[in-house]
Amino acid sequence: MNSHQIHLASRPAGMPTKENFKSVDIELPVLKDGEVLVKNTWMSVDPYMRGRMVVSDSYIAPFEIDAVLEGGAVGEVVESKNETFPVGSKVSHISGWRTTFISDGSDLALLPAIGVPEQHFLGVMGMPGLTGWVGLFKVAQLKPTDTVFVSAASGAVGSVVCQIAKLNGCKVIASVGSDEKAEMVKAMGVDAVINYKKTDDLTKALREAAPEGIDVYFENVGGAHLEAALNVMNPYGRIPVCGMISDYNAETPQPGPSNLLLINTKKITMQGYIVMDYWEHYGEFVEQMGQWMKEGKVTSEETIYEGLDNAADAFIGLFEGKNKGKMLVRV
Amino acid sequence: MNSHQIHLASRPAGMPTKENFKSVDIELPVLKDGEVLVKNTWMSVDPYMRGRMVVSDSYIAPFEIDAVLEGGAVGEVVESKNETFPVGSKVSHISGWRTTFISDGSDLALLPAIGVPEQHFLGVMGMPGLTGWVGLFKVAQLKPTDTVFVSAASGAVGSVVCQIAKLNGCKVIASVGSDEKAEMVKAMGVDAVINYKKTDDLTKALREAAPEGIDVYFENVGGAHLEAALNVMNPYGRIPVCGMISDYNAETPQPGPSNLLLINTKKITMQGYIVMDYWEHYGEFVEQMGQWMKEGKVTSEETIYEGLDNAADAFIGLFEGKNKGKMLVRV
Repeated sequence: MNSHQIHLASRPAGMPTKENFKSVDIELPVLKDGEVLVKNTWMSVDPYMRGRMVVSDSYIAPFEIDAVLEGGAVGEVVESKNETFPVGSKVSHISGWRTTFISDGSDLALLPAIGVPEQHFLGVMGMPGLTGWVGLFKVAQLKPTDTVFVSAASGAVGSVVCQIAKLNGCKVIASVGSDEKAEMVKAMGVDAVINYKKTDDLTKALREAAPEGIDVYFENVGGAHLEAALNVMNPYGRIPVCGMISDYNAETPQPGPSNLLLINTKKITMQGYIVMDYWEHYGEFVEQMGQWMKEGKVTSEETIYEGLDNAADAFIGLFEGKNKGKMLVRV
Repeated sequence: MNSHQIHLASRPAGMPTKENFKSVDIELPVLKDGEVLVKNTWMSVDPYMRGRMVVSDSYIAPFEIDAVLEGGAVGEVVESKNETFPVGSKVSHISGWRTTFISDGSDLALLPAIGVPEQHFLGVMGMPGLTGWVGLFKVAQLKPTDTVFVSAASGAVGSVVCQIAKLNGCKVIASVGSDEKAEMVKAMGVDAVINYKKTDDLTKALREAAPEGIDVYFENVGGAHLEAALNVMNPYGRIPVCGMISDYNAETPQPGPSNLLLINTKKITMQGYIVMDYWEHYGEFVEQMGQWMKEGKVTSEETIYEGLDNAADAFIGLFEGKNKGKMLVRV
């Protein structure tokens, strides 16, 4: 049995290119007792992976050159010498970027049998969904009276944030980078959409959309979005910092907003967080999201690239705004 | 009876100048029942007053043109038709920038009789002291194992922060703007001092002083200090944002640090606060600080300008680094 894999060929400087990736075939050994063979069906590409492609002082170890990449994926057990994971088991794990692999089961989780398509466990029901849910409820302490501004609102995390903030009674202002994405988030029920690529003055646009001021800014982007959010934020505003995608591929560091003093005068709390620290809430989250999905209150938008050999393109596409909702690769 | 007063003549653009101030003499009426005449002995000048000199979206109303300025002061009741404040009462209030004034008592607080010089209630035992104490204990949740970096460490707030962090067992790195100020904070027991005016690379200097990383950055300054603090901060670091004095007089907005993404990757919490929101803790604070002062564990450094007509110079001097410790005017 072969495993077709995508390895890191070189570390990107600036925007990643296809030359940073290479595909490699590995022959897998025969299963030992306790092991299973997993065939991946779907894999996830996520902006955070950009950080792992370089060596930095981060919360997670960098990918190694000439080794297979990692990331969230779901698959099916096709051979088994492990009673916990019989043939046919659907599992989630972080051994993406490959067609098949052997596991002793310690890195596998059985997908909850709640009747949602398996790839949703890489999106709305998985890491991106939990990231949005945690940012709103555990970091920002969302209240139904809050006006919430969401950047990268059509992305995997942002689109969940928009929907669950609406479900909690909030007014939601979404920022997106195309008219098509604007339509998508409007269909999800947000109160106002800003296409930042067509806006000269993001502060003015945000103030017009939220004359009452914003209480929560869900930070996915950084730069001009953060500056506008600080300008329009109400006293005691909260900024869960999920990411700053505008900085990920900067070859030279971009200066930050010039209005950080507003953090003091408006008594703002800006809190960085990593979803890993909140996995203890996954059960609670799955129950709530599963219910909302069954009731049709949360929808999952997905952009799908076909085949593992297009995974690098899918990943690069994240930084070119090519995804609506969750970017996925059908392996 | 006359009141000699300092009025706001015009709003400063950039660094305030003496032309923004003017002195005016007002005749006071005869006391009515319930009123007292207060003669000010000391007044405070504080960086936050710069914010009140312009019209902005701040937590506090701007000063009015051609009206007397306001600010913390202490004085003595010299005439009284109010039983609560008999002649000889020492009081604190916010009617600074004038020699005398009439009050109905509603804006006066009797100084606690704990045997410390009255001007300390404008510094270590007053608003600046409480600001430091709140930032460390109520905002940053200080732990004895923390390494704490303090900017503007020789100022009224910074010098209190250095001392009480040391009293709580922390390692303290202080940043100051002169060798003389460095000596002052060393005498207060800090573990390392950086004279930022003699340092090309603040991140390198901070990393050398705290190879273990910093856990708390007490933010008084902004700009390059914040950038260095983020670079050297440990995961889950906390940044109480007390002020950003480097921004107060900027005529054009200065860009912020280019490394704000570290707020996410290091899971940092940056929290702006205003001491007004924490006055409920004043009793607890005074008891603890009073005890420390009696035991000689906290010292009060003061820079004194003589006479109300030098108050504008004292205020402007805050932005020129002319104060060691609390800047005071003996009225």
